[in-house]
Amino acid sequence: MNQDYRDGPRRVGQVKEITSLTNPIIKDIKALSAKKSREETGTFMAEGLKLIIDAMELGWSIRTLVYAKAAKGKPLVEQMAAKTVAAGGLVLEVSEKVLSAITRRDNPQMVVGIFQSQWTNLSDITLEADDTWIALDRVRDPGNLGTIIRTADAAGAAGVILVGETTDPFSLETVRATMGSIFAVKIARASEQDFVTWKKKVSAYLVATHLAGAIDYRRIDYRKKPTVLLMGNEQSGLPETLARQADALARIPQQGRADSLNLAVASGVMLFEARRHLLSLSEDS
Amino acid sequence: MNQDYRDGPRRVGQVKEITSLTNPIIKDIKALSAKKSREETGTFMAEGLKLIIDAMELGWSIRTLVYAKAAKGKPLVEQMAAKTVAAGGLVLEVSEKVLSAITRRDNPQMVVGIFQSQWTNLSDITLEADDTWIALDRVRDPGNLGTIIRTADAAGAAGVILVGETTDPFSLETVRATMGSIFAVKIARASEQDFVTWKKKVSAYLVATHLAGAIDYRRIDYRKKPTVLLMGNEQSGLPETLARQADALARIPQQGRADSLNLAVASGVMLFEARRHLLSLSEDS
Repeated sequence: MNQDYRDGPRRVGQVKEITSLTNPIIKDIKALSAKKSREETGTFMAEGLKLIIDAMELGWSIRTLVYAKAAKGKPLVEQMAAKTVAAGGLVLEVSEKVLSAITRRDNPQMVVGIFQSQWTNLSDITLEADDTWIALDRVRDPGNLGTIIRTADAAGAAGVILVGETTDPFSLETVRATMGSIFAVKIARASEQDFVTWKKKVSAYLVATHLAGAIDYRRIDYRKKPTVLLMGNEQSGLPETLARQADALARIPQQGRADSLNLAVASGVMLFEARRHLLSLSEDS
Repeated sequence: MNQDYRDGPRRVGQVKEITSLTNPIIKDIKALSAKKSREETGTFMAEGLKLIIDAMELGWSIRTLVYAKAAKGKPLVEQMAAKTVAAGGLVLEVSEKVLSAITRRDNPQMVVGIFQSQWTNLSDITLEADDTWIALDRVRDPGNLGTIIRTADAAGAAGVILVGETTDPFSLETVRATMGSIFAVKIARASEQDFVTWKKKVSAYLVATHLAGAIDYRRIDYRKKPTVLLMGNEQSGLPETLARQADALARIPQQGRADSLNLAVASGVMLFEARRHLLSLSEDS
């Protein structure tokens, strides 16, 4: 066991026990289901012990660790509790009823963490060769956004740029759908204008997926420069103002009666194509 | 206008007006939200005028057409109403309150159709060269299933085979997620044993996506024979009993911390790879 944690189990005095739903700390945590409250506090909630361990390993700052009475004494929970206290955070031991209320689930995870949100500034993005970013124009559906963040991670992309008014990547539903990838992928946000200005400054190959795209998505040379894939939103596709900035307007050939792909599926197909030359099974390499 | 429809607007006597939520016909339609009721009646609900027109063009049998008062007199609605009556179906003109109750939505579509479910028997599947099917082992999530049906349609696959206990393709949530592709793609279902027996009889190349798959999914020759892609479920991946039947165990190479892809995204990546040689932009051909 790491030396930092060895005092953990003894620090029982620093753990607050709460069973009441009207406790003000619990009320504050429950309020995180609202975007306003997440933005004001700069925090968000993630569920599950493994995910919290990963987040802390990746350097995310935990503010509050909440665990169910039943999880008390488990070595990994105690370690995380000690680590939270060491970082100046709060540790709460709560009833399952309280956990259900916080997570809005009947069978909640036993451990929940409140973390400080991390945004990457557009101006801080350094584009290296072989970097892939995916930019999403006004993405609306929390599940789609979460799935795209998860896919970006799996495909080895550097991060996701949210353009314009989008659904919040730190909502509970989106964080759930990322399956932990929210902690592994950089998230930036920008107005349409700021994104356009940024694109003009940096040396990136901007590939927009467009219903009127003339180029087969497989014919694009993704090796040329760092690539930014730009995807239109679920309802209206990509606006002309953004499409005009693209170095290539790509299209995924389709058959059948469906006239479009689900946004997360289209993003997946594009990400795995853009990184096709960079992905291989470890057995192959 | 097609001759068959020209009497439509005059057939007003055959349209039933309903404003009460307790009307027994409305109760029966509302009951379709339960799988049991869908199976007993062999029917399901689809929303939206365009989708209903497409379904009827594709030969699906409509039992009941429901439209909001506000849609009355619209030529396409009247055409569909006449066609429904001609097919021996029922036409209901209802209040928006009733439509909301039926569809469980605050802003419901103006037109809803109750259709006869259509299943394809496994034994009736004829595998032609260039045919692609996707088989889903115990898929659980209605949204995932709907998205996969939509993607199968877009990629030009012939249909979807549901293996074992799966979520119902004719649930409202799944039908919604298919965006109309439920009417364009064949749906078959089979127990694991029946699927295995079928596989042994037919001349298909069964490619299972497996976490322990040794073959890069891009190295498989999908031109060899009609291809059946087999995907494990969201929680547990593919059981060994099914994996053993595969002609190839494929894997999608992944980087990053995420240990898996969302099932619908993985299905999309596999479908577009398996049909890579068959898909092209019309401008290219």
